[in-house]
Amino acid sequence: MSKTTEMQSIWYSEQNETVSIIDQRHLPHHLIVEEIDSLEQMCAAIREMHLRGAPLIGVAAAYGMYLACRQAGDTGPTGRLEEAAGLLLATRPTAVNLAWAVERQLEALREIADSGWRTAAALATAREIESEDIERCRRIGEHGVALIEDIRRKEQATVNILTHCNAGWLACVRHGTATAPIYEAHRRGVPIHVWVDETRPRNQGARLTAWELAQAGVPHTVIVDNAGGHLMQHGRVDLVIVGSDRTTRTGDVANKIGTYLKALAARDNGIPFYVALPSSTIDWQLRDGISEIPIEERNPDEVGFMAGALKGSGEIGEIRILPAESPAANFAFDVTPSRLVTGLITERGICAATEKSIAALFSKDRG
Amino acid sequence: MSKTTEMQSIWYSEQNETVSIIDQRHLPHHLIVEEIDSLEQMCAAIREMHLRGAPLIGVAAAYGMYLACRQAGDTGPTGRLEEAAGLLLATRPTAVNLAWAVERQLEALREIADSGWRTAAALATAREIESEDIERCRRIGEHGVALIEDIRRKEQATVNILTHCNAGWLACVRHGTATAPIYEAHRRGVPIHVWVDETRPRNQGARLTAWELAQAGVPHTVIVDNAGGHLMQHGRVDLVIVGSDRTTRTGDVANKIGTYLKALAARDNGIPFYVALPSSTIDWQLRDGISEIPIEERNPDEVGFMAGALKGSGEIGEIRILPAESPAANFAFDVTPSRLVTGLITERGICAATEKSIAALFSKDRG
Repeated sequence: MSKTTEMQSIWYSEQNETVSIIDQRHLPHHLIVEEIDSLEQMCAAIREMHLRGAPLIGVAAAYGMYLACRQAGDTGPTGRLEEAAGLLLATRPTAVNLAWAVERQLEALREIADSGWRTAAALATAREIESEDIERCRRIGEHGVALIEDIRRKEQATVNILTHCNAGWLACVRHGTATAPIYEAHRRGVPIHVWVDETRPRNQGARLTAWELAQAGVPHTVIVDNAGGHLMQHGRVDLVIVGSDRTTRTGDVANKIGTYLKALAARDNGIPFYVALPSSTIDWQLRDGISEIPIEERNPDEVGFMAGALKGSGEIGEIRILPAESPAANFAFDVTPSRLVTGLITERGICAATEKSIAALFSKDRG
Repeated sequence: MSKTTEMQSIWYSEQNETVSIIDQRHLPHHLIVEEIDSLEQMCAAIREMHLRGAPLIGVAAAYGMYLACRQAGDTGPTGRLEEAAGLLLATRPTAVNLAWAVERQLEALREIADSGWRTAAALATAREIESEDIERCRRIGEHGVALIEDIRRKEQATVNILTHCNAGWLACVRHGTATAPIYEAHRRGVPIHVWVDETRPRNQGARLTAWELAQAGVPHTVIVDNAGGHLMQHGRVDLVIVGSDRTTRTGDVANKIGTYLKALAARDNGIPFYVALPSSTIDWQLRDGISEIPIEERNPDEVGFMAGALKGSGEIGEIRILPAESPAANFAFDVTPSRLVTGLITERGICAATEKSIAALFSKDRG
């Protein structure tokens, strides 16, 4: 088993009773593990993006509730629970998983009067949420790997997969979503190569996905976001797999800005375009992604400045890459209409990006 | 008249008998003018990309031949001419305009025995090539501005234009190609706003186009290359204008990598996509851009490293943005098939991107 599949983005040590995370701000230049001892520290880690990725934020928030219980101890009032929930919810107001994980902890803990039992229950719930995420991602990998094996059977050559942004284990706990089929194919010995979009402006592809793949020994090449269309025109991409931040019931996919452009190029060149997603990202209320999903506009400084390892010293430095007089705009996501999506890879299996097909796959849950 | 339309990327001073260029490597952080006194210095300036852009490289090479003649003086053999041509041709072997300009100088100078006359003729030819480039770009602006004025008449709002890379005066001598209609619209008081793709990996949009537009007072916003599709989906782009590095006789367009993705998004959203080009970029030999135009692959370090003004000091620094273990690939151009191109804006007028329409516009030249 490779190094990566043993690593997690967040973990609890029973021996030391500590919660640890990878401080992703320093990747790929430094692998820094941060021990999180308090609710306040976890809130800062989420808010200041030591960690990111909707599934991971949910797990982190669940552990945050555990830390709050532990801190409150015997002297703490149960009111501390609601206060802790409020602090966590205020860190990243748009992450759906965060609110969901906090609410689940509140439901589990509200009725428990004994502070010792409450802390133990909070830990158990956090570990459960963590395990569920790992299992969902594992299943996405198992379903998705069939697509890669199919291409391998037909082509008898290395399968070239393009991905955008980081939907890897750094965004979840293990396996990742878009990366889960990739890691599973690599584990099975299917020869693959991944084109990694650098994913401006925050460079999650270049910084995180490339680092993950390098750690796991998966052959890959980083390209600028402009390059994918050219590669597809020349037969150098067999399959596109991306993640999703929110998916409508009709199969429209909101994902990192630029995903839509790759979907257009895939369609223009007859290349399958799949979206890997845990069902938790499906928003059953929405029908039209382009008009209904609000797109976060972030600080333009993310476009105007860039951080990296300074040539020479290797220390982290930040440079300005725009003229001082030029404004920038920074849209975080775009929406790929379902007509451009070949299929959705979920923990339940693969389905078409249509209302009917999605509903059929998840009908047991939805009555 | 605005500051920009008075500025040139290269110029000859009659008073001082000097050739000067803007050393574009330092933009947008520092405006550094470099005086070029010798053939060797001009070769270094082209090779090390103090200047770039096919039209500008042609003009620079013509001045390089003048400098060679001046250096040779009375003592120089005419053989020096061929040697100078060889040195210039070796600087950037792919730029078509370079070979063309050098050949034109050789033809003009070969028969002139007197070194004084030869130097004078070389200067005259260089200035002629410079003037012709300015005039071609001016005409592109005059033809293209009609497209912008048409949109303004219909929409009665600010016209939003998206451009990719730098096809501005910094790539030519004055006006630019894709920017010529923009500057002309601005001069005429048509309210416009330009979305500037940053254009990874070399960031010519963020570094050069944004700087040009800021100098000229043209309202603009820099976006990452991923953002254009989202803007088009939401009606925030009225028109796309890009340049061309090579155009087939059938209307396929090789331009900076990523152009094809914007053309796809324009088509998907019913937005006109125009290419501004001097006829010198038309390669009359080629019919199929995707299979026939060779795409330059450049140093991967252009993807892995980025330069800019260090936060704090403002000095130019370079940072590594990839994991040390991750390889990168760096394709310089892609090809946009003619079916995605609404029209070509040339110095002769606007035509459809079809063999028939292009041939009709240029029939006088081609017999």
